[in-house]
Order: sequence, then structure tokens, then C-alpha cells
Amino acid sequence: MRNYLAIDAGGTSTRAVFLTGSGQCLGYGVSGGGNPVSRGFDDAMEALLQASSGALGGTPQPFSSVTIGMAGASLELATEPFRERFAGLGLSGNVVIESDLLATFYSGTCQDNGYALIAGTGAVAARISDSRLAAVADGTGWLLGDSGAGFWLGREVLRAVAAALDGRGKPTALLEPVLAELGISGGTQERTNGRIRAQQQLIAKIYALAPIELSRFAPMVFDAGDDAVARDITDRAAAALAGTLTAVLDGAVDGPLVFGGSVLTRGGSVAGAVVSRLSGTIQQGTRQQGASRQEGAQNLVVPILVADGMAGAAVLALKRAGVKVDEAVFERISASLAALRA
Amino acid sequence: MRNYLAIDAGGTSTRAVFLTGSGQCLGYGVSGGGNPVSRGFDDAMEALLQASSGALGGTPQPFSSVTIGMAGASLELATEPFRERFAGLGLSGNVVIESDLLATFYSGTCQDNGYALIAGTGAVAARISDSRLAAVADGTGWLLGDSGAGFWLGREVLRAVAAALDGRGKPTALLEPVLAELGISGGTQERTNGRIRAQQQLIAKIYALAPIELSRFAPMVFDAGDDAVARDITDRAAAALAGTLTAVLDGAVDGPLVFGGSVLTRGGSVAGAVVSRLSGTIQQGTRQQGASRQEGAQNLVVPILVADGMAGAAVLALKRAGVKVDEAVFERISASLAALRA
Repeated sequence: MRNYLAIDAGGTSTRAVFLTGSGQCLGYGVSGGGNPVSRGFDDAMEALLQASSGALGGTPQPFSSVTIGMAGASLELATEPFRERFAGLGLSGNVVIESDLLATFYSGTCQDNGYALIAGTGAVAARISDSRLAAVADGTGWLLGDSGAGFWLGREVLRAVAAALDGRGKPTALLEPVLAELGISGGTQERTNGRIRAQQQLIAKIYALAPIELSRFAPMVFDAGDDAVARDITDRAAAALAGTLTAVLDGAVDGPLVFGGSVLTRGGSVAGAVVSRLSGTIQQGTRQQGASRQEGAQNLVVPILVADGMAGAAVLALKRAGVKVDEAVFERISASLAALRA
Repeated sequence: MRNYLAIDAGGTSTRAVFLTGSGQCLGYGVSGGGNPVSRGFDDAMEALLQASSGALGGTPQPFSSVTIGMAGASLELATEPFRERFAGLGLSGNVVIESDLLATFYSGTCQDNGYALIAGTGAVAARISDSRLAAVADGTGWLLGDSGAGFWLGREVLRAVAAALDGRGKPTALLEPVLAELGISGGTQERTNGRIRAQQQLIAKIYALAPIELSRFAPMVFDAGDDAVARDITDRAAAALAGTLTAVLDGAVDGPLVFGGSVLTRGGSVAGAVVSRLSGTIQQGTRQQGASRQEGAQNLVVPILVADGMAGAAVLALKRAGVKVDEAVFERISASLAALRA
């Protein structure tokens, strides 16, 4: 029986699993960021090999393919340079790069039709049809979109604080944690050259950061308690994410809804708010065969939350090799992977 | 009688004027970006000297001070390095750096109390009291604020186009000019890996730009005709700018309202929309002495539009030297400067 290597390569961390054709995960490894578009080929390759070596138990072993789940632009990379490096670990066949959207989707289900919504640093939704990406919405990055995700939330938190300081915006409970995080003390009333001093310091501190680092202020919006400004931000985030998912809905495609990314899986209320905004759309837009609308809508609007795309990369490794991944195989992958991670 | 040198140093262009104590402008010069914070000291200094030399007619002549209008952070620069370099052109006294907000304000009036709102690439408002900045709002830069100004508008235009392409947003007349500007043709329906092809190209083109370059898409919002998406963007811009100005209003301070920056002076409807949003606030918040509210509001809500801070830097040069700048002197500065520029 053949064995397979599956990798979930993220921007900041990478996971790999070595598994059999029956879905039994034999080994698991982790490493740093493995995306060649954001990290550069050599650094990313090193991370991929390190996680893979961990999954193989440190010893080359024969496996017939490598399946790597990666973000968008990586799908167009030539795979030959990857194949050469994996040959040293025991690869006999090909390297296949799959979308991280598919890897996330298949971490929650073995069905070949459905929907995925991811809100981590960025936000993206996909309709999956016949195990391929049929439609993708957003995922357009921090300047053009990614509306409602981590960078967007962090930026909105900071904009709200900047506006509260000079009176453009309402007072907010977000002010104190942001100033504390940045080491800014006092000066929220005093002005120099007309400018509130704490705001001047905020400007100096924030523009010393790389823009993408603004996402680190996102979690504060979930810890702000009963604050109207924070609630407005999370409401707008949920509306944006619901809109992104709605853009890929198709009445002809039915199936599970998988949620990934920390804003949805750890963000508390956002996942629920997205679902409640969707209910009407989904009742009208999908699940019209057989089951009553009400039942169908109830099925679809209970999202499956997944932590990453590791199980899905393993599912894809088997599916693309022609192995039928039924519920039993899917459960075997999930359970044996969970055991290795524990 | 003493002469003075006044400079309006912007991020992309610099203007200088050589004038008498009676406000007669004798010479005018221009050069590139003269802000030491954004350009670096040496490049900025070169631009300042080049514009100054132009104003002096290419020959050193005695003048008793240099007054430079510059954006925010420059106010804290040490002036000694400037003084040494200007000595070679004929400076006998000091270099004084003034806020570009004051320079803009005094380009429209010689009164020492009032308000300025600037919306160019960034957006900032100030209350001027006794010829000093009493309160400043926004001007917090492209990540933290500058709401309603050029970068903000350009980014909103691009986000609207990205959203229209994948169905998150409404169709918009902004789509065609943005794709044409970026050289993207076709592919607004076809998908690759689920992604609309034109959107994939949009992503590639936009992230190859420096973020601040997004401001070049701002003017498209004013050329979109009767487009609901464009109108929503300009409505939100006007609301944000009105909010920024409202944050510095003080019932105790009365005086002229000066508008600067291309979004207000060349943006067509935005200045009017800001004013109409302000009317209620101003009637309630200011002008309560003597004149009826209605008359007061009408005076205040007719903004004075100015192209830059050149005349204001000249006004400041005289004021800071103890020269009384009355209406006659102000008119002399304005008229003689206009003649030199013609």
C-alpha cells in the first residue's frame, strides 16, 4: 500500500503529516512559515522540508506524492523545484499544490460540494463544486479588501482610538488597552501645537510598524466588553464576512459550510453573527431539493469550525491519488491526526 | 525697511517668495518636495534653497528671517542647520518653522481666529486662536485616519471595484476607468481557480504600488457621473471631513473658515457637501454674539478656498516679525504674489 505526504503551509507556520492510503496518519511535524510567495523560495522550502522530516520521523521513507495546501498565488508555481528537494526524503511521484481554501474545506468534510469561509489575517470565501474551487470572493489583501478579518479589525480598532483622542469619534474602552500595548501613558487631554499628545505618540508608534502588524490589535475588539464602538466594529466585520460568503452562494450547490481562521474560530461572537446574517439568504438560495427549507437552512447554517488545513491537505492527498475518501476514511484521518497532535 | 523670505514647503513641491515688510512680493521661486521628514534633510534643504534662490532672483540679498510652512512633525526640527545654509543667501536672523495648517489658514485671511480644513492626500482640521494652533483633528495619516482625503478616496474606489468584480459589491461605473488605468483588459467574468481573472490582475497591479500611490485613483470618484457606488464614497468622504472639522469647532472661537487641498478645492461637490453637513452644527456651536444665528452661520459656512500655503507663509513672516498685517497688507501680499505667479 502506498503512503503519502500532506503539508499545510501557512504564512507563519507549517504542518506536515505522513499517512497511509487508508487515512491512517503515521507521523506529524511542524515548522515556520512555508509560503514561498511571502517567505521566498529557499526559506519556505526549508520550512516545508523541516515539517516533512518531522512527519517522517527523521528518516527518509517512500511516499508516492506530496500535496501542499498554500494560499492563492502559490497555485501557479512550478512544482519541479519542489519535487527535486522532496526526492531526498523518499518522494517517488509528483508534488501537487492545492489551494488553502480547499485544504480548509476538507478539514471539515469529505464531501465534494459546499462552502468555506476563512477569516484570519485576511478574509476569503469559496464555493467548492466537484472538489474544485468554483468561485472565490475577497481574499484581495489588506489594501483592496480582506474585509472583516484580522488586519481590517486591527486597523479599525486603531482608527477608532485615533478618532476618540481628538474628538472625531466617540469615547471607547479600546483606548486604554491600545495605549497600554504601545507604551503610551498620559497626554490624552494635553495638546502640543494643537495636537493631543497621546495621539502624536500613537502616530509615531504605528507608522514605525509594518502595516500588516496592525492585525495584532484585532483581538482587543473582542475583549472590550459592552463598548458601543467595539460593537460597531464587530457588527461591520460580521456584515462584511456574511457579504463575502453570500457572494459565492449558489442555489444549485448544496453542502457543508466550513469556517476557518482565528476571527471565526476564536473570535467569539463573529461566527454566530455571520451565521445569523446568512440565514435568510441561505433559506432562499440553497437547499431546495427534498428537505424542507427550514431543515435545509438549519443544516447549512451550523458551520463546521476547523483550526487549520492539515486534515484537508491529507484528504486532498488521497482524493487526488484516486483514493475514495468516505466518512470512515475521513474519521480515520481526523482521529489519528488528533492523536499525533495531542 | 527689512525684507523677508517665506517658504511653503510641501511633500511634492515647494514655493518661496521674497517680500518687503509692507507685503510687496518681489520675487517668486519653485522647486520639488521640501519636507525634511518625508524627503530627508539634504534633499529637502536643496529644494528649499532652490526655490529661495529663485525668489531672490538668483543673487544673495539681505533678509531678516526665513519662515517655512511645513507639515506636522517638522515643527519639532532644530532650526540651526537650516539657518547655516540660508546665511549664504543673505539671512541675518532666524529660521522659523510654522505649521502648514497656519500657512493654509493665512492664505485665506489675515484674522487671527478661525478654522482651517485641508483635504489633499491627507485630511486635517485646525482651530486657530490668537494666531496659534489651538486644536488639531485627524491628520493621522493613511493607516490611522486622513478620512475623506485623497488616499482614503483612492482606496475606497479600488475596494469598490474589487468588490464589484467578485459580486460582494454593486456594479459600478468606477470599474472601467480603474481597469483601463491599470491596463487590465477583459476577464471580468472568467475565473481561474475560482477567482475572477480581472480581480487577480487588479491584486497583482495594486500590490506592486506603494500604498500612498492609491491616492491617484481618487479623482475618478468625481468623474463617475450618476453612479450610486461613487456617490456613496463621496457622501462618506464629506461626512468624515465634516466630522473632522466639527471636532475642532468651539463656540467661543469665531472667524473665517479656510479650505485647502485638492479634494476640497478641485473635488467639485465635496466642499459643498461638507458645508451643508456643517450648517446645523455651526448655527448651534458658534456665532452667538451679536449677529443672529442665521446671519452668523451664513458668514461662517462660506469657506475661503486657497490653492496652497504660500500667501499664508508670507503673512506669517510679517506677523512673527511684529508687522501688523491688516486687510491692506494682506491684499498687497495676495495681489503681488498672484502677479508674480501669472
